[in-house]
Amino acid sequence: MIDLTHMGRRARLASHKLARASTEQKNHALSKIADALEACADSILSANRIDLDAARAKGASETLIRDRFDLENRMSGMIADVRKVAELPDPVGSVFDQRTLDNGLRVSRRRTPLGVLGVIYEARPNVTVDVATLALKTSNAVLLRGGSEVFESNRVLANIIRDTLTELDLPDIFPVDAVQYIESTDRQYVEQMLRLHQYIDMIIPRGGASLHAFCRENSTIPVITGGLGICHLFVDGSADLDAALPVIFNAKTQRPAVCNSLDTLLVHESVAADFLPRVVEHLSPAGVSFRAEPRALSHLAGAGSVQAAGDGDFDTEWMALILGLKVVNSLDEATEHIRQHSTQHSDGILTRTTEHADRFVDEVDSAAVFVNASTRFNDGSALGLGAEIAVSTQKLHARGPMALEELTTYKWVVIGDNHVRG
Amino acid sequence: MIDLTHMGRRARLASHKLARASTEQKNHALSKIADALEACADSILSANRIDLDAARAKGASETLIRDRFDLENRMSGMIADVRKVAELPDPVGSVFDQRTLDNGLRVSRRRTPLGVLGVIYEARPNVTVDVATLALKTSNAVLLRGGSEVFESNRVLANIIRDTLTELDLPDIFPVDAVQYIESTDRQYVEQMLRLHQYIDMIIPRGGASLHAFCRENSTIPVITGGLGICHLFVDGSADLDAALPVIFNAKTQRPAVCNSLDTLLVHESVAADFLPRVVEHLSPAGVSFRAEPRALSHLAGAGSVQAAGDGDFDTEWMALILGLKVVNSLDEATEHIRQHSTQHSDGILTRTTEHADRFVDEVDSAAVFVNASTRFNDGSALGLGAEIAVSTQKLHARGPMALEELTTYKWVVIGDNHVRG
Repeated sequence: MIDLTHMGRRARLASHKLARASTEQKNHALSKIADALEACADSILSANRIDLDAARAKGASETLIRDRFDLENRMSGMIADVRKVAELPDPVGSVFDQRTLDNGLRVSRRRTPLGVLGVIYEARPNVTVDVATLALKTSNAVLLRGGSEVFESNRVLANIIRDTLTELDLPDIFPVDAVQYIESTDRQYVEQMLRLHQYIDMIIPRGGASLHAFCRENSTIPVITGGLGICHLFVDGSADLDAALPVIFNAKTQRPAVCNSLDTLLVHESVAADFLPRVVEHLSPAGVSFRAEPRALSHLAGAGSVQAAGDGDFDTEWMALILGLKVVNSLDEATEHIRQHSTQHSDGILTRTTEHADRFVDEVDSAAVFVNASTRFNDGSALGLGAEIAVSTQKLHARGPMALEELTTYKWVVIGDNHVRG
Repeated sequence: MIDLTHMGRRARLASHKLARASTEQKNHALSKIADALEACADSILSANRIDLDAARAKGASETLIRDRFDLENRMSGMIADVRKVAELPDPVGSVFDQRTLDNGLRVSRRRTPLGVLGVIYEARPNVTVDVATLALKTSNAVLLRGGSEVFESNRVLANIIRDTLTELDLPDIFPVDAVQYIESTDRQYVEQMLRLHQYIDMIIPRGGASLHAFCRENSTIPVITGGLGICHLFVDGSADLDAALPVIFNAKTQRPAVCNSLDTLLVHESVAADFLPRVVEHLSPAGVSFRAEPRALSHLAGAGSVQAAGDGDFDTEWMALILGLKVVNSLDEATEHIRQHSTQHSDGILTRTTEHADRFVDEVDSAAVFVNASTRFNDGSALGLGAEIAVSTQKLHARGPMALEELTTYKWVVIGDNHVRG
């Protein structure tokens, strides 16, 4: 029986201590964590093999195992990311909106840690390290709850981080409970965690739509929902069609199982007859198959990889080499389709008409809106944040990729000369 | 039977239209609303009198009626506030973090409306106008749910605003459903509203602790909790005691029933014997009574307005002319007391020692931290925001006073030259 309230209380106490850490101390701690992960590579991979064997015994596909569970090819990247985060600027302590009011009060806002993060994630064990690293860099304590498929890997990774904190021997700055892993796959602990609003300041779910819905329904703590991406590109009548093909190819095929990959291609009627067959021809060799609404289908008679779109196909995040195709009469019809079917994650227009680009950007209310670029750019490192803990599709606090600054809040600092309010 | 889903859907559609309004159009609409409120003063006050009569019949105190329900003395201020909001800068559309990445992608973030606000409030009917005004200024639609005590006042105010929107005769920009009032005091509609995450982007409760807790427990929409303020001032050993008295007086007595008023005074032991009797002498004539822990009490023997602090007194938001008194041995003990008892709303230090001020500001994690100033300054207009829709004591999205910018989110705008991700 795990006492989650006790874990929460310890995390809260740890967060108070972490708030004292200097940027240099935090960067040093991260570098020690990277060293420790390197030194412990063998034990990490042994634990990972236990998870992989169990997954195989349960019949998991080799694709799933390779893409999600296996750490072997991800170890060096994971460790390099820890060192990279150490090099990023520390947002904590930075001051903004500084000014002196007419009455002489000096007012500013200062960035502070959120306090305690609760992160609930599925599959990829490197998330354990990514999240702990970003939390420590921003002086936040973290409660981690990983997926059952890589339980052993997660446990070993969390323990290496905790052991490193212990070895730093600065318990008043880096208490071991700054990083805590819930060592059980029992779902009841997720439910308990979601109600620890006394101790946890933000819940970040990382996983599928059902995890996000579960958190939204059951949490008394603010939840960053996101991750689900039904993403669109609209090929305007004025698009550079030759240039559009590689953008569409990249958006669909570069990593089809991630949230910013393309799900639906909307094509203006004026270029549909010419362009749709070229899309099918260009993407089919990569294994892409297509779901076309009737008008799009009419331009694609006989193409083997094309079938008629079914009910709900335009409301599906494919996560696979499948692409929806639809012909639209106008920019308005394109933005209206996006309004109805997009998850407001990543949507774009391919056009050479500035006015159309501007209207699309104005009217499409998604976390990231693209003009003549692949939707795949919607993540923290691709947009210049240097890291990413999640991609938010809700509108509070942060929208789109979240990195270090998005793990902070601020306090108002008001300095007076014994000012009283009139 | 009110169909709240239908109201939510109409609000969402209205928000899409409102997003097209220019700053000039919005300011014009606000000025028309102010005109209409002026023109309809009689009918507003008649409706208000119905509420006041009903409140008196139910035995509400005249103080409560005057402070919370009565619009008579508040009308001109309420209307002036609408005109003031029209003059504030419009955050919607402003661009920040604009930069060109190494690969040539032009990335920026653009402020956009949140979409639909859900505001649940108690008592003061002017909130109906305040909230609708701030929502319209930021191109947000709003669902309003007011308190039962001023139901008639709220209904008339909401209808005047809706009629003005109709008279603008720009239904594609200012649809009447941009402002909707739930015309029922049945609690079931609050519960239904809290689950309309498909249509509402942010819930702002304005009321007591139980309303905030109810929203946090039952909402599937992000909630801005706040409002509850157990506020502290710490009189350091080096404080200018003569100057401290008026600050304490102001923080406690200027408006005792609001959230940023002072609840507990912590006094350093080195000045307690001298200063505590002066505090009692200075504040008693204004009707303040005191709850002192034993050590503070020992310095105040015989003062009629002083009694021993009981269990929970230091965890009480007084909302009245009562002040807790406690002697502490050190700055550390003061910050530790604040950590344990503060609601992280407004806490301050009175000191002439810069190092102590800095440590206090570093270690006290409250929405607003004050040095040599009254806690009463923690609101939107006093801190230079020009308005206020709520004071947040949670840490996501906004902390402390929330005004126009806090009613917006942003979208990432990414412009490329047919960029693909490598």
